[in-house]
Amino acid sequence: MKKSFNKIKVKRSPKRGFYDKETVYKILDQNFICQVAFVYDGYPVIIPTIYGRLKNNIYLHGSPVSRMLQTLEKGNPISINVTQVDGIVLARSAFHHSLNYQSVTIFGNAIVVDNEIERMKVLEIISNQIIPDRWDEVRLPNKKELKATQILKIEISEASAKIRKGPPIDDKKDYNLPIWAGVVPINKSFGNPISDLELKQSVSIPKSVLALIKKNN
Amino acid sequence: MKKSFNKIKVKRSPKRGFYDKETVYKILDQNFICQVAFVYDGYPVIIPTIYGRLKNNIYLHGSPVSRMLQTLEKGNPISINVTQVDGIVLARSAFHHSLNYQSVTIFGNAIVVDNEIERMKVLEIISNQIIPDRWDEVRLPNKKELKATQILKIEISEASAKIRKGPPIDDKKDYNLPIWAGVVPINKSFGNPISDLELKQSVSIPKSVLALIKKNN
Repeated sequence: MKKSFNKIKVKRSPKRGFYDKETVYKILDQNFICQVAFVYDGYPVIIPTIYGRLKNNIYLHGSPVSRMLQTLEKGNPISINVTQVDGIVLARSAFHHSLNYQSVTIFGNAIVVDNEIERMKVLEIISNQIIPDRWDEVRLPNKKELKATQILKIEISEASAKIRKGPPIDDKKDYNLPIWAGVVPINKSFGNPISDLELKQSVSIPKSVLALIKKNN
Repeated sequence: MKKSFNKIKVKRSPKRGFYDKETVYKILDQNFICQVAFVYDGYPVIIPTIYGRLKNNIYLHGSPVSRMLQTLEKGNPISINVTQVDGIVLARSAFHHSLNYQSVTIFGNAIVVDNEIERMKVLEIISNQIIPDRWDEVRLPNKKELKATQILKIEISEASAKIRKGPPIDDKKDYNLPIWAGVVPINKSFGNPISDLELKQSVSIPKSVLALIKKNN
């Protein structure tokens, strides 16, 4: 298996472009929300949704009557973006202000996953993308729910990552200005779990939630 | 001025759809990253970028040679999405797992902002969207930098918000299962500012950064 993707060339700030699978997978794996764009009736449509990654595939799911899934399952071109913002970059000049971020863009086409064993596996992958091991704790999908779930697979054939990190880069002469410059990190963290009021008192917070909170906070 | 937008109807989970300006503006104002989708050569393209809102307009900026800006300045249809994830919703059933989120989708067309006074004002708005009052502390754009900056305005004519909040909603019979259910809040917070190593020792952390951190942490 080749280790790099076909290049969707990063045109603005090309030094920030990465095309290797390791970088692309890492960014995909540390997030779970993507934005999906497709063309509908000549117009661009953009919809946020959750995804799962396994090997070189992205999986989306939703209702079979979803306009997005109905459009994509015809094999129409799809563009997917995942963006994580890591910090605000404050320069001495307004012009050189920036963000630190990690972003992946994928172009491809979707196909329907229709094998029932594969479908169940994919739902587990999507679930794990958000909260690992939760799948083992819950009431699994029944036939009716599976019928109400469409699953699409997009092979990651064309992909690029774009990353900015580190301090601001100012014009040489601006370094002498008495203006503060640096980075304000943006962190994602989890708050204390809020138990459902309808919960039986005997049910304690499960392993999956404890592990998630411990890992990320 | 009418208080509601032309409806881009929220088709999936229509109860989560909102079309009033107050709701749309609130979500836009508490974020600064959007995803822009447009059609290029028949294909959907999606690009994350920062934005600013003033009144009923969204402003984008970038290099005049940016493919996105060059496509959009022709007046091609544009779709913009802003999504903020507030929590993971854990149900007793896999099927009813969800996210709490606030999302806005806008359809429209861009026009170029070419008045120099308005351009400078828009750059301040975009800057303030990320970190209020930073504009007053920095070295402002010079002629060369302004020439290297294209600014587009999109009137928010068609827009919708989609919001999910609150506890999981399970099937009635599942409430008896001994499975934990609830919400794990996702919080965005700012870390300690990291001063640029090239900074003069005499420059302390500015008001804008202190206020940002105080407000959000």
